[in-house]
Amino acid sequence: MNTLRLLLGVTALTTVSHAMAWDFVLLDSDTPAQNRQITSQQLGIKTDKPFSVTMRTLHGGRQEGVSIVDIDNGTMKLSVVPTRGMNVLHAAVGNVRMGWDSPVKEVVNPAFIELNGRGGLGWLEGFNELVVRCGYEWVGHPGMDNGELLTLHGRAANTPANKVTLHIDEQPPHAIRLQGELKEQAFKKVDFSVVTELSTLPGSVSFALNDTLTNNGDYPKEYQALYHNNFSTPFLEQGARFVAPVKQVSPFNDKAKGDLPDWQTYRAPTRDYDETVYNVVPYADAKGDTLAVLHNKAANLGVSVGFNTQQLPVFSLWKNTDTQGQGYVTGLEPGTSFSYNRRYQRPLGLVPTIGAGQQRQFQISYSLLADKAAVDKAVQRVTQIQDGRKTEVRGTPLVDLSKE
Amino acid sequence: MNTLRLLLGVTALTTVSHAMAWDFVLLDSDTPAQNRQITSQQLGIKTDKPFSVTMRTLHGGRQEGVSIVDIDNGTMKLSVVPTRGMNVLHAAVGNVRMGWDSPVKEVVNPAFIELNGRGGLGWLEGFNELVVRCGYEWVGHPGMDNGELLTLHGRAANTPANKVTLHIDEQPPHAIRLQGELKEQAFKKVDFSVVTELSTLPGSVSFALNDTLTNNGDYPKEYQALYHNNFSTPFLEQGARFVAPVKQVSPFNDKAKGDLPDWQTYRAPTRDYDETVYNVVPYADAKGDTLAVLHNKAANLGVSVGFNTQQLPVFSLWKNTDTQGQGYVTGLEPGTSFSYNRRYQRPLGLVPTIGAGQQRQFQISYSLLADKAAVDKAVQRVTQIQDGRKTEVRGTPLVDLSKE
Amino acid sequence: MNTLRLLLGVTALTTVSHAMAWDFVLLDSDTPAQNRQITSQQLGIKTDKPFSVTMRTLHGGRQEGVSIVDIDNGTMKLSVVPTRGMNVLHAAVGNVRMGWDSPVKEVVNPAFIELNGRGGLGWLEGFNELVVRCGYEWVGHPGMDNGELLTLHGRAANTPANKVTLHIDEQPPHAIRLQGELKEQAFKKVDFSVVTELSTLPGSVSFALNDTLTNNGDYPKEYQALYHNNFSTPFLEQGARFVAPVKQVSPFNDKAKGDLPDWQTYRAPTRDYDETVYNVVPYADAKGDTLAVLHNKAANLGVSVGFNTQQLPVFSLWKNTDTQGQGYVTGLEPGTSFSYNRRYQRPLGLVPTIGAGQQRQFQISYSLLADKAAVDKAVQRVTQIQDGRKTEVRGTPLVDLSKE
Repeated sequence: MNTLRLLLGVTALTTVSHAMAWDFVLLDSDTPAQNRQITSQQLGIKTDKPFSVTMRTLHGGRQEGVSIVDIDNGTMKLSVVPTRGMNVLHAAVGNVRMGWDSPVKEVVNPAFIELNGRGGLGWLEGFNELVVRCGYEWVGHPGMDNGELLTLHGRAANTPANKVTLHIDEQPPHAIRLQGELKEQAFKKVDFSVVTELSTLPGSVSFALNDTLTNNGDYPKEYQALYHNNFSTPFLEQGARFVAPVKQVSPFNDKAKGDLPDWQTYRAPTRDYDETVYNVVPYADAKGDTLAVLHNKAANLGVSVGFNTQQLPVFSLWKNTDTQGQGYVTGLEPGTSFSYNRRYQRPLGLVPTIGAGQQRQFQISYSLLADKAAVDKAVQRVTQIQDGRKTEVRGTPLVDLSKE
Repeated sequence: MNTLRLLLGVTALTTVSHAMAWDFVLLDSDTPAQNRQITSQQLGIKTDKPFSVTMRTLHGGRQEGVSIVDIDNGTMKLSVVPTRGMNVLHAAVGNVRMGWDSPVKEVVNPAFIELNGRGGLGWLEGFNELVVRCGYEWVGHPGMDNGELLTLHGRAANTPANKVTLHIDEQPPHAIRLQGELKEQAFKKVDFSVVTELSTLPGSVSFALNDTLTNNGDYPKEYQALYHNNFSTPFLEQGARFVAPVKQVSPFNDKAKGDLPDWQTYRAPTRDYDETVYNVVPYADAKGDTLAVLHNKAANLGVSVGFNTQQLPVFSLWKNTDTQGQGYVTGLEPGTSFSYNRRYQRPLGLVPTIGAGQQRQFQISYSLLADKAAVDKAVQRVTQIQDGRKTEVRGTPLVDLSKE
Repeated sequence: MNTLRLLLGVTALTTVSHAMAWDFVLLDSDTPAQNRQITSQQLGIKTDKPFSVTMRTLHGGRQEGVSIVDIDNGTMKLSVVPTRGMNVLHAAVGNVRMGWDSPVKEVVNPAFIELNGRGGLGWLEGFNELVVRCGYEWVGHPGMDNGELLTLHGRAANTPANKVTLHIDEQPPHAIRLQGELKEQAFKKVDFSVVTELSTLPGSVSFALNDTLTNNGDYPKEYQALYHNNFSTPFLEQGARFVAPVKQVSPFNDKAKGDLPDWQTYRAPTRDYDETVYNVVPYADAKGDTLAVLHNKAANLGVSVGFNTQQLPVFSLWKNTDTQGQGYVTGLEPGTSFSYNRRYQRPLGLVPTIGAGQQRQFQISYSLLADKAAVDKAVQRVTQIQDGRKTEVRGTPLVDLSKE
């Protein structure tokens, strides 16, 4: 490793070898974020898919001081935002992008956001990523619970990562893993830490999250998690379809009742559509693994989101098929919970508890389905999981929001 | 230009030549704010009024990380705050200053302000500039509207500028233009951008704003703008006068009724006076251009604020003639709207709408009236615009605030 | 001094000699916080207790950009946080630490805290220091007062210091003084500045605060101050005792009634204990000086907190003897006021006023009592101050919180 350090020629480089991986500290209490790049070439890896990891800092406007880590695995380019909960800003393979076009163009430093603003909707001032972590004290719509205003979707997405490290396996296939720790701590209130991990293999069209929530406190606490995974064109279009093994589906609210018959297909960008949301209880295989698929009308381009229902038992399908400018986007959102305010989810049994010192793991995989074969295979996997079991289409919302 | 770049000796200098201007990027997503100076001498301009533009960063306290751009046009010195909505902190010609002495001494980084604090008055924790942009989603006093707390005077003054560029005409008179873009964006809520421009001519005692608001969204949106232009001594003093072509004037609230007969003259610093505000509907010339003047008692020193009533149809005169320490200051405030909460202004027709993709321009000019001749000329211009037309002095406020 | 500057070899060093002290500007509007160290050796001081002052900046997470000043006086190590109101993070002599283990592990930059969040309890997201300044507009529990939500314990702890200077006496004993200025300013609301000073003598096991609050405004204003001094093990343990000269003690609320008979002794970490608080009116000597002592069960290790009742007439004893993970900690808190919301303290006469231009001084001394002799001496001093005077044990809270 010492020779490597010299070869890398980066004097401030912190690199420790363990478990047969190159480890780099990108950010820590005594390591400021810096413009730097680590490449497969620097590491002496000979490959026809050279990869690189680049760290940079944004300036100006509300994005002053925001760190970005760009991972180019040789095929897929990913951008991760340590300053915003290790959210995944976007991913792309060639000109096919995962992600969407939010009206929010800046990658907003949480220092400039008041989550309590706009009646608890301040979160919307920074919302523009492909993967937005929601939680972990709570998720869901703003509102009072236990005498406190819970702001939209919790604090994780606006929590800067505390320590960011990069690990590259020394052995092929040289898995690239980016870790960042989030601390959700408030005296008397909460003592959570979340070690987030994003991994990808050089040359692949997939990446995976493996997040570990720890309750460092001495008391059991309620928690909620929801992964707000947002996709748009080229997958989302008129006639695009959502496919998943579904045990139960129901409209989130009265508005969503109307489109219930067509809940698995998408509209073109539609003026004044705003959004409809469907609450899905997915089926899974014997291990709890399940798959949600979004594909275009021709079924030759799509994405799949894999997760485990023992970790994330429910799923929200957010269909925000309004105009492009308003944000033409759909959310495939596995979670412990739906998007109701926490006070509505307790009676549904969707506010789990994490014991003192306990951990919860959330693993999600994201794959580009680059052609018809890949889409077919994913859809077949869904069918396999469904395994002929019935789908309950519930006509009314699980929560009567009129009683608020 | 390449030779020039070498002459400037600033390696990181980004400078592009177009439209016969020297263009400098002072701040952008990949260009951090840096201490730097651009001078007429560096540019090879031979003039008896050498000018310069200097960028610096403040440290310590709530002003940590605040960028300031100082423009010395050879006669007038101006300081602009990119981190605070491109507000103009102060301007001065010799020892005559435009601006005022607020109790707020720091130039406060918006990261340290909660606009929602103090019942929506958090804005007051940073208020100390000569020109404070109010808007553009809303202006006015805090209060609920459409179920949301609108904080005092909107977000613009606490929005850091996203991209800041400097343009200096290659040809005489070598106009200096400083541009900065503000983004007011929130998913589902607003997608505004405001390109602000401040311009001044070397050697002049004037500067002008030329702001362009764009609704980037797909839907028409309400908007409001108000330019909170604040002056104190040496213009403001006992017997100082406000002069403008006035179609209608009315007291903002019951408190302002009492001083209505003297609404155009000012008191000395007055203990427990607090403030009175008068709502003015100005007359303009055939093009919509109009002028407001503040001058001292002797009428030999003043400032004028020119604007266009097609852009900014109404005007608030804010008379905060309390003690020096409390803030002895008057605001000459052209706007689309008065300073009532937005919900009160809809019935008055003062909450305009901007269509999808549309733009609105706000142009305001500020001039020092350095002697009696200059004051006389400005007052004559006011008389010319009034053109003998009547002034309605309305005894009661336009809004009955007791009904809140 | 010029020779010294050269010897120090720090080109950007600002050092001015006056009053026979070496003065260093560590942070100012044009002096950014930098990693730097000043040592007794650099200053040419020959001592068997060499001392040093080190400035550093934290990175990552919510502590991005936080400055820390570490003072090693040769015996005691202190860490002060300019970015958080010049709070004292912790102090230690050898392995005996003053301070505690909060669930909040980061030293949180106020830019990432919404004090108005969590119903006004946002302050808890950063609370982890040994000495936390509370005030100076208000202290106490969150709640409405005069139509405004007062957030927990005021703004001082989340106000970054504006100018930080270090002074080292040229003459023995070479007192080390660290000053930092806090500005609490909001137009029409408040114009306070607080010059904080922490001093310590090389080789000593004590330090002292000497804070000066100035009302820069033209009007008298209410103010409140409370020094939230927090201690844990090794002083706090089952059977540890609090000793002070007490005129009156009363339970803060109904919950604290139960443990009133044992209010001066501590429990072991106790599950579900949460906290009890006792309101103490201390006796003082003829000069107003008084002393509060916390010592362990064996009475051979303790700390003393000295203050003056003319400056800080009341005292809160906060007994948060919950589990270690929840925060096993006690607060010895001299103040102008108790910890009730400000609206409850006016009727108690505990919301003092500071006149225009007036100053208030708050002096507090902290000493490690390293052995039985030191503990005994401090306890004797308490007895001396009590001087046989009676203690009123009041059974009911001073405020009836049920009437809220």
